[in-house]
Amino acid sequence: MTTGIRLLVAYDGTDFHGWARQPGTRTVQGVLESAVACMAGHEAVVRGAGRTDRGVHALGQVAAFDSERSIPPHGWLRGLNQTLPDDVSVRQADACEPGYQPRFDAIDKTYRYVVLTDAERCPLLRHRAWRLPPRLWHPSRTAALTAADALDVAAMRGAAARLLGTHDFRAFRAADDEREQTTRTLHGLEISPGWADDPRQIAFTVRGSAFMKNMVRILVGTLIEVGRGRFDADRVSALLGPQGRREDAGPTAPPEGLTLVEVRLGRNAVHAVEDP
Amino acid sequence: MTTGIRLLVAYDGTDFHGWARQPGTRTVQGVLESAVACMAGHEAVVRGAGRTDRGVHALGQVAAFDSERSIPPHGWLRGLNQTLPDDVSVRQADACEPGYQPRFDAIDKTYRYVVLTDAERCPLLRHRAWRLPPRLWHPSRTAALTAADALDVAAMRGAAARLLGTHDFRAFRAADDEREQTTRTLHGLEISPGWADDPRQIAFTVRGSAFMKNMVRILVGTLIEVGRGRFDADRVSALLGPQGRREDAGPTAPPEGLTLVEVRLGRNAVHAVEDP
Repeated sequence: MTTGIRLLVAYDGTDFHGWARQPGTRTVQGVLESAVACMAGHEAVVRGAGRTDRGVHALGQVAAFDSERSIPPHGWLRGLNQTLPDDVSVRQADACEPGYQPRFDAIDKTYRYVVLTDAERCPLLRHRAWRLPPRLWHPSRTAALTAADALDVAAMRGAAARLLGTHDFRAFRAADDEREQTTRTLHGLEISPGWADDPRQIAFTVRGSAFMKNMVRILVGTLIEVGRGRFDADRVSALLGPQGRREDAGPTAPPEGLTLVEVRLGRNAVHAVEDP
Repeated sequence: MTTGIRLLVAYDGTDFHGWARQPGTRTVQGVLESAVACMAGHEAVVRGAGRTDRGVHALGQVAAFDSERSIPPHGWLRGLNQTLPDDVSVRQADACEPGYQPRFDAIDKTYRYVVLTDAERCPLLRHRAWRLPPRLWHPSRTAALTAADALDVAAMRGAAARLLGTHDFRAFRAADDEREQTTRTLHGLEISPGWADDPRQIAFTVRGSAFMKNMVRILVGTLIEVGRGRFDADRVSALLGPQGRREDAGPTAPPEGLTLVEVRLGRNAVHAVEDP
């Protein structure tokens, strides 16, 4: 009998070429499919709630697969975590119907992007944050500044408020994204200086119905231009709508600062597994 | 002319066999001495404020060396950060007298220890926190719990209060530590559930005059026994004093959760370097 299994997956994206399987490269989907095949004794496709790019992390990716083996969810949880390499893990597992597609069941997704304002490299955050040396915008200062000193948080929050709601976000997608439908809804965009009990860090928490390629990273790159005083809120407003142009938005923030934090599902969220 | 240079150093301890130089192994002191020698054109000894064990991290290690080259502090800062591998960096540099010994100038040191209460592995924190699966102490629960659910924070704070002040801490040192003088002063021991904006994390921030081998890790291992309900505060009090025995204290917490956060110096702290 075919059963469906749904997983809540975490990974350190540093050594992966992103989520999506690609022959000859190490991807999260590929590594998960190998681990499932190893336990199931047959090949399996692992379906994700969304792709993440090379270097992007996840705390709450959702994935599902079908199996002919009668292994209960907690058996998959224990077995996969023993098989998987240490940069990917299954946090929770439950049963779902065969063929379940997390992508179509996702109501919204939450991403977090972390920026580090430090004049020098930080070994402990080198794969976790976009480092912006403060002297780029305060030429006279090179010492470590708090994120709130280095960036105009009020201006960024004002610009973020303009982005909330339903808009044509075509200016905020990778140049090679060819989608016809470019209207998306942003439900939340919080800006948190002093993130993770560290005055040098600032986090952008972005929640929306769906995202185009590089959309979160371009949103952050654009808000950083606001924080540096190069863009104002009106310029950000002008990017929204069918006349918006990619080249008028800010740069694409690098992948290492980005984490897929949560996928909210139409049915119950993946719930905790009880021990047998 | 010989000049002294003082550095504020950060490192990710994961791939180092600790601070102290050892032939044939990769150590932070060894890597720093190679980088200084490369710039100076002569061998140099880099003197640290304290040793850290294999796998232990630092945000605020202090180190000093002497050089015959007339390179200003900001030149050392820039040059060393270009030479050093990406798991160690110099955050600040300033001048000091030749022969300056950070170890003798240290007034106190602050360490942080992070515990993660999660039933499953967390790839993003695998080298940064001690993971304690909650089922070890709540056999009926395997789901991710908040740290405050999983550990009795009030009991740990009560026991921590007993440890503050000047005591004979001989029960809190590695069995192979042979020091005669085992009296130390703890100035602070804060317990912060929800550390780093993550409900699964709890941080122990320990400040003291000086520490014996593994002392912070045994203090944390003992407080975790209190948090699990295995030890009470009276048992912790009984560990203090000349009759204290290592085998009555808790286990040595693993190194990856520990970071040397700050060394407070008698003279001015290492200060920011101004650009020339």
